[in-house]
Amino acid sequence: MPKFKAEINVMPLKALLDPQGKAVTGSMKNIGLAEITNVRIGKHISLEVEASSKEAAQKKAEESCKKLLSNPIMEYFELTIEASK
Amino acid sequence: MPKFKAEINVMPLKALLDPQGKAVTGSMKNIGLAEITNVRIGKHISLEVEASSKEAAQKKAEESCKKLLSNPIMEYFELTIEASK
Repeated sequence: MPKFKAEINVMPLKALLDPQGKAVTGSMKNIGLAEITNVRIGKHISLEVEASSKEAAQKKAEESCKKLLSNPIMEYFELTIEASK
Repeated sequence: MPKFKAEINVMPLKALLDPQGKAVTGSMKNIGLAEITNVRIGKHISLEVEASSKEAAQKKAEESCKKLLSNPIMEYFELTIEASK
């Protein structure tokens, strides 16, 4: 079966505070990079899916995001799939 | 000054083990998604940079990655910059 590569971002919902990001925004000033603001920090996940088609791979990857990788109360996810080299 | 948006992935070096990713790969089996393998987990960071040009923004964002956001002993980073809407 062909393999597909998924790249997933799991980020804190825009409506929520992101304390880790806030702390890093503050640190930017201290290292002389005050031009950098609005830092938000989430997870990036890459994985491989074995599936018969790109659509099937997308479905499987979405399922993994919903069941395991993201917490919909606090996070949203973005997903891109491409054929694996 | 114009604003730019940077999207940054900080991932564990490919030569290194990623225990968190390994654990999640194992969990995929338990939730009926054995087709998913090779999970690797890192950080995704989005931030805004105020700079005179895209090149200047890229430089500032790279500096922030090297000085604060990534640990080059264990991680590598990927960076994309675009004009902020």
